[in-house]
Amino acid sequence: MDVKAYMIEVGIAARQAASVMTSVSTEQKNKALLATIDALNSQRDILISENRKDLEQGRLNGLEPAMLDRLELTSARIDGMIEGLQQVAGLDDPIGIINDLKYMPSGIQVGKMRVPLGVIGIIYESRPNVTVEAASLCIKSGNATILRGGSEAIHSNKAIAACISLGLLAAGLPENAVQVISTTDRAAVGEMITMPEYVDVIVPRGGKGLIERISRDAKVAVIKHLDGICHVYIDKDADSQKALDVSINSKTQRYGTCNTMETLLVDENIAESVLPQLAGLYADKGVELRGCEKTLGILVGIKEAVEEDWSTEYLAPILSIKIVEGMNQAIAHINQYGSHHTDTIVTENYTKGRQFLSQVDSSSVMINASTRFADGFEYGLGAEIGISTDKIHARGPVGLHGLTSEKFVVLGDGHIRS
Amino acid sequence: MDVKAYMIEVGIAARQAASVMTSVSTEQKNKALLATIDALNSQRDILISENRKDLEQGRLNGLEPAMLDRLELTSARIDGMIEGLQQVAGLDDPIGIINDLKYMPSGIQVGKMRVPLGVIGIIYESRPNVTVEAASLCIKSGNATILRGGSEAIHSNKAIAACISLGLLAAGLPENAVQVISTTDRAAVGEMITMPEYVDVIVPRGGKGLIERISRDAKVAVIKHLDGICHVYIDKDADSQKALDVSINSKTQRYGTCNTMETLLVDENIAESVLPQLAGLYADKGVELRGCEKTLGILVGIKEAVEEDWSTEYLAPILSIKIVEGMNQAIAHINQYGSHHTDTIVTENYTKGRQFLSQVDSSSVMINASTRFADGFEYGLGAEIGISTDKIHARGPVGLHGLTSEKFVVLGDGHIRS
Repeated sequence: MDVKAYMIEVGIAARQAASVMTSVSTEQKNKALLATIDALNSQRDILISENRKDLEQGRLNGLEPAMLDRLELTSARIDGMIEGLQQVAGLDDPIGIINDLKYMPSGIQVGKMRVPLGVIGIIYESRPNVTVEAASLCIKSGNATILRGGSEAIHSNKAIAACISLGLLAAGLPENAVQVISTTDRAAVGEMITMPEYVDVIVPRGGKGLIERISRDAKVAVIKHLDGICHVYIDKDADSQKALDVSINSKTQRYGTCNTMETLLVDENIAESVLPQLAGLYADKGVELRGCEKTLGILVGIKEAVEEDWSTEYLAPILSIKIVEGMNQAIAHINQYGSHHTDTIVTENYTKGRQFLSQVDSSSVMINASTRFADGFEYGLGAEIGISTDKIHARGPVGLHGLTSEKFVVLGDGHIRS
Repeated sequence: MDVKAYMIEVGIAARQAASVMTSVSTEQKNKALLATIDALNSQRDILISENRKDLEQGRLNGLEPAMLDRLELTSARIDGMIEGLQQVAGLDDPIGIINDLKYMPSGIQVGKMRVPLGVIGIIYESRPNVTVEAASLCIKSGNATILRGGSEAIHSNKAIAACISLGLLAAGLPENAVQVISTTDRAAVGEMITMPEYVDVIVPRGGKGLIERISRDAKVAVIKHLDGICHVYIDKDADSQKALDVSINSKTQRYGTCNTMETLLVDENIAESVLPQLAGLYADKGVELRGCEKTLGILVGIKEAVEEDWSTEYLAPILSIKIVEGMNQAIAHINQYGSHHTDTIVTENYTKGRQFLSQVDSSSVMINASTRFADGFEYGLGAEIGISTDKIHARGPVGLHGLTSEKFVVLGDGHIRS
């Protein structure tokens, strides 16, 4: 198979579909989402049997049990996909909204219209439900999408793609608005991320290695998320109950998520009163603590944190703790060692709260709230295609809005420039 | 000189400055701009004598007269730079604005705060006034900037940079918030566009060759503008006076600008009534016309347009003309051959106007207005650092707003996620 020729074909089809999708009605887009639900419902057996092929192959290839679990499509998981489609159908359609339409001194009216980005390429691993999630957000935001799932999920993804095709056709939308790459050849990814003529943005979802590789080689804009090295800073003026609640929840509500706290920063003036109790609570949850030198003076017997700890995303029940001289040192530490993802201050001090919000350079900055809230659903976006730790275009959870852009619209009455 | 080591030093200094600039007051930023005016005023003689060194060297190197003209700093041009600084000082400060702060079902409040991008690298050619323009927009938007002007303007740019430094210091801002690359070694550009640790965005300003090279090699986001292949479409339902006004102004108000029309599209039902008169007006202005086959049947004796004409940015008194069967064909032509820059329809038809706005995939889409209006000043942005024909982050004229991004802010009261 000539992968390059195949990908160009896919790219051309996506561009054509995108030119239609850009101005279809909200009603049509929702109809496609709801018809996809019908297709998923009526093809449950096929979905599950196709998924079984992937599972069997995965077992033969020696996939880890955790990977096999993520790969599996059960009837409950199909229900989850259907629920997701219903939610996206219920979201407000951002496309076509015109903002700030204002008269200029020349007499023209100038405003900005929200428009789709065009063609979005999504590269992801194992979980086949991403196929539906990503496709539904792209459809609702008027984009065409090219999906490249993991080779281990190829049968599942093709079966899901067939349901989405049925949904698009039922709504009279171009079938190629959602395309699943049918080859498992890795060269397809290389082509996809280097064809700006056909692809406007790449959203990679997966491990840090995958995302770094894609960012390095891409010739197309990438909306990406590398690490989540999140911090909670307990200020001297913190309410101690809030400090306990936020610190425990940010670390222990889930360990493997990007918005989980990895380093706790504590003001030296409150460290002795708050750390022993916190350490007890962490011990109850089985969290391993690693402290700076000052912390070791208070929490005797815990492991010492080394330089590398401050820039490590554990994704595990491990927490590094550093005692700082005050908020400025905390902010400096966060901006230096963090990943610009999510950081929170616990304080009752008005001025310090405002300063923290303004000076911490992260996609989500919080006061007295758990880092675990950094999430598209919690932020009211309805769904998210990913979390961006980049600085341009979109920061933080990326929902429908992040898959759009604004163009200028100008209304005149025969106006000319003098 | 070790260019790599030098650029890393510049990058580190820029990052440090950016971390301060992100939260300085509007008053301080304006003070820096106004103090730069004082410095430019008091150093007019030095600026002009340093500029003379560049001019002499340019003459020795055989620079074209047009280039030498662009390079020259006169007292009037210094006045122009000063006026620009005053305008930027007068613009609203976008930084710190919090939008859409809303309560979520969990009880947290979530909003978006406008923040600087961080470090902006600007690469430009010959005109030394860009140094002040770019620096002022970056200062006002709270960014640090690294400026790399053309080697032919190195003495002028260093002298201007010294004035900006004085301005920054007078306002108590970090001197390194604006750095001018002091080497003319081209390797400096290669380093600057491949150090995402230190540079967040690159804005290249110059010829298409320069911009293509930078986009191809950059490992940093690029806000760019390649061509301006702009169209006017005269619809069957156009008011003929507006059709004449907009078509003539879009082409002839200035020939060398990116928002000048390069191809005129005319509905076949109105072509015979509008084209002869238009051709006469273009002839008066000395514009060469190149027509499609149908056009040649109406405007006898003009040159035939070849395929290449439809994708050529003439930047000259040349216009290609194509007769189309209706709006759909016009839109298809624009989306295929255009450069997604600026396109306008002349029509009195309500429905077609709405469709054109929605279906033309360009950074500025207009009804009954000259393409020449696509400009930061005309759009009320106050000033522009460039025009983007990209789709993500910013489309069209890029002013202060395009040099910023939004982060999420979350306000809680000890809220945790359950």
